[in-house]
Amino acid sequence: MRLGFDVGGTKTDGVVVAPSGTIIARLRRPTGWGAEAVVATITGMAAELAEAVGGGVDAGALASTFRSVGVGMPGQVAPHTAMVTHAVNLGIEAIDLERTVGDALGVPVRAENDVKAAALGAYALHGATDAGATGSMAFLNLGTGIAAGFVQDGQLWRGARGTAGEVGHISVDPNGPLCKCGQRGCIEAFCGGGAIAERWGRDVPLPVLDVFDAADAGDARALALRAGLAHGVAAAIRVIVLATDVETVMLGGGVTALGTRMLSLVRDDLAAGAAASPFLSSLRLAERVELLPTGSPAAALGAALVGATATEQEAVAHG
Amino acid sequence: MRLGFDVGGTKTDGVVVAPSGTIIARLRRPTGWGAEAVVATITGMAAELAEAVGGGVDAGALASTFRSVGVGMPGQVAPHTAMVTHAVNLGIEAIDLERTVGDALGVPVRAENDVKAAALGAYALHGATDAGATGSMAFLNLGTGIAAGFVQDGQLWRGARGTAGEVGHISVDPNGPLCKCGQRGCIEAFCGGGAIAERWGRDVPLPVLDVFDAADAGDARALALRAGLAHGVAAAIRVIVLATDVETVMLGGGVTALGTRMLSLVRDDLAAGAAASPFLSSLRLAERVELLPTGSPAAALGAALVGATATEQEAVAHG
Repeated sequence: MRLGFDVGGTKTDGVVVAPSGTIIARLRRPTGWGAEAVVATITGMAAELAEAVGGGVDAGALASTFRSVGVGMPGQVAPHTAMVTHAVNLGIEAIDLERTVGDALGVPVRAENDVKAAALGAYALHGATDAGATGSMAFLNLGTGIAAGFVQDGQLWRGARGTAGEVGHISVDPNGPLCKCGQRGCIEAFCGGGAIAERWGRDVPLPVLDVFDAADAGDARALALRAGLAHGVAAAIRVIVLATDVETVMLGGGVTALGTRMLSLVRDDLAAGAAASPFLSSLRLAERVELLPTGSPAAALGAALVGATATEQEAVAHG
Repeated sequence: MRLGFDVGGTKTDGVVVAPSGTIIARLRRPTGWGAEAVVATITGMAAELAEAVGGGVDAGALASTFRSVGVGMPGQVAPHTAMVTHAVNLGIEAIDLERTVGDALGVPVRAENDVKAAALGAYALHGATDAGATGSMAFLNLGTGIAAGFVQDGQLWRGARGTAGEVGHISVDPNGPLCKCGQRGCIEAFCGGGAIAERWGRDVPLPVLDVFDAADAGDARALALRAGLAHGVAAAIRVIVLATDVETVMLGGGVTALGTRMLSLVRDDLAAGAAASPFLSSLRLAERVELLPTGSPAAALGAALVGATATEQEAVAHG
């Protein structure tokens, strides 16, 4: 069995994955703040998950129960390692999860950027339910920021320098809103949860939901922000498919909690583009977009798949 | 030895490639119009190239001299076949190059879209001169239209439906010029040779060169068109690197005959973007752009590499 964790800013999602690829146990717990607390969150959940699947909870027993641990985290991850840097949402500047989580559990650890882990997990879940149809997928994360992960034939496309999928900072309007990256009209400036919250300006727990509710009530500023969000997401989908021609664009991230309230507006924007352009129409973009179900374990599952590469690397090194 | 042809609207470029990958003979001839004339162009050049490398010119001798033929052509090509459709610049609606060129020469044939063939050839040439530095490359074709081909670890990324690299029809300005695809502000509407020629409106043999010369002389409309061209090319480079993170963007196609007169303006646009955005600056885009030398045999060489897959396929089929 293998462990996978998706460490988010507020919650951590942990799963136990059987050799068949099936998730056989799952837990969610609040994430601690800072490196030590994040490590304690993961090791504590590992013990709880071991109990849940009938294993022992001391280090020796964990090592015989679990072959690997994979951790998805917001931040930069050196490929094929457990080194994470700039996980600012978690209060972590740099952490070696092999020397912390790995040493505590006695199990090899690999890390991955959370969006890339979610892409890998979403691909696995999609393939499991719709076998054969999925040769390539982009996972478009709609959260505070906007970024995508690409999976082709089950493998992540990382790019040459690890920045593949930074579609949030492609400008689609030279007169659009100023983005915190310094450009104008970035996709993220239109549809990033952070950018919308800042422009909306109300101190509420769920600003994008608040914008949608206010738009429904006819508020002009909310209507403009909501239209911008739909346009930004549609632009990201057009950019992704026109550049990479992935078969499926899977939408995930916090903003997708709005479900069809958001997706229907995105589809409307794609349909308007297709109506104006026979070329766009031929790409059937609206049919290629799917919504990751709320509460999907995609990111934790993807992390477990990344973790599995740890034992593959060891087999090569020692084999 | 293997043959590779790049069949363009006016000229066809043909090469003989040794098993080492070296080009040992090269010819350029005018391209005939329509399916029969295109086939005659290729078979006639095959005989000339056979003579150039000391082989016989009848069908039996050609089959013992050349193991495969690869043909790059503007149009749509079904992957791993010799079926080409919509090669409108050549007056061809559909052609099976295996049943025409292949039967005439007695050699297996494979076809590829010309931009994808050029991408493969540019990657091979780049790797040969700068080994190790090239893990991934986009070839950005600046011709009548704008499209890119992607190569990763020596393999073409075709996408799920064969439309990967259609970056020309990504809109980067909702108030930009109308594109013939129906959208506004497409990259191709800014920097496609066809779009520029149409807006410039002068009946000259080389409209983009004419625009550059007129801009140098201070013509306001030419200055605007030239700035738009540089901006469109820079936008394509940003889209390509932000989405796919290829290490190198190689510029090719007819418009690159302008050489550094064009490239310096594109670099200026990239530098202006980088000055406004620390994030863009960190991607070092200007350093990742290169110009394919004028007269490079990249497309014909790439076609020969595609042709080589014909004998690999046969080896698998016949065991």
